[in-house]
Amino acid sequence: MQELSQQIAFILELDKLKAVYRKALIKADNNRYENSAEHSWHISLTAHVLAPYANDAVDISRVTLMLLIHDIVEIDAGDTFAFDHHSVLGEQADKERAAADRIFGLLPLSQREKFISLWHEFELAETPDAQFAKAMDRILPLIQNMQNEGGSWAQNKVLRHQVIKRNHYLESSAPKLWEYVLAQIDIATERGWLRGE
Amino acid sequence: MQELSQQIAFILELDKLKAVYRKALIKADNNRYENSAEHSWHISLTAHVLAPYANDAVDISRVTLMLLIHDIVEIDAGDTFAFDHHSVLGEQADKERAAADRIFGLLPLSQREKFISLWHEFELAETPDAQFAKAMDRILPLIQNMQNEGGSWAQNKVLRHQVIKRNHYLESSAPKLWEYVLAQIDIATERGWLRGE
Ligand SMILES: [Ca+2]
Repeated sequence: MQELSQQIAFILELDKLKAVYRKALIKADNNRYENSAEHSWHISLTAHVLAPYANDAVDISRVTLMLLIHDIVEIDAGDTFAFDHHSVLGEQADKERAAADRIFGLLPLSQREKFISLWHEFELAETPDAQFAKAMDRILPLIQNMQNEGGSWAQNKVLRHQVIKRNHYLESSAPKLWEYVLAQIDIATERGWLRGE
Repeated sequence: MQELSQQIAFILELDKLKAVYRKALIKADNNRYENSAEHSWHISLTAHVLAPYANDAVDISRVTLMLLIHDIVEIDAGDTFAFDHHSVLGEQADKERAAADRIFGLLPLSQREKFISLWHEFELAETPDAQFAKAMDRILPLIQNMQNEGGSWAQNKVLRHQVIKRNHYLESSAPKLWEYVLAQIDIATERGWLRGE
């Protein structure tokens, strides 16, 4: 039962991601902040639904597992806002690597490596699976903000060119979605939800 | 772009599951109620971690997708507490079938059937994949309650025999986990977190 105790400890640790709040707003729940656990659920299903737009052959099961675990490191490292300063985001990367070692390290050896290497693959964003997963992590907040008068963009005075840059993964990984995203960014700019400069 | 509009509408609809609250408590977040979106994330990862205990060969990708979608019907039908009266649970089944038709019906035809039939497979619990998914849906609240002085069991005066009955899927689907669950139920009873009669 040694392995099972380790697995239960990991499962209990996951509960903490439900207490990590992001800048995204949940329109359906009185515009409260979204937590990273429910975000991870939403994005995993988003990937399933949008998989037909992937440009390269992607393994949707791997993409899903990648997205289910992509934010677990925030239990130790916290969430950073996508449009924070570079210095903040640099320190964050170190904290997240240490967090991955600690949290996935709760698992038995037989499972640990698989999760850690999948998390690193997502972070490096070099494989088609990881690039499509990253693309999903970019498009979902856009979809949410467009439904919510700019949502976290408007609240945080985000600039148009920042959103274009951030969604760039879509250009090669899902070109049809990239077209859609550019059109949405134009609408958001016209409506004043994104700032021009 | 007709299909894409339908897919975006479905993705936006999913946001509403973050506003459906269950009886389960999140210890890590001041014992607030858990919502069904974050629960669906937690259980999908739980299935990955506990997959080695499945008695029959299960397709963990199908199990994961099943668990990601298993509670979506609650957007229309609401959550029912596992230990509610049978009459409540009976009406609920009808509401949930209508909800599945409406919500998965937002998707393009090419995707709709896959999701609806996977949801029905989960509900019927006749295949090894669905039985293992159900087993995960039973064991996770137990793991959470054992960490939290009985959690939703203690709050709702749940009886020991109700929990044994509810976890029965584990007996055939993951016998080692069934042993673990029975031992945990004994501990919970000794500590007064579950009532004997
Ligand atoms: Ca994040």
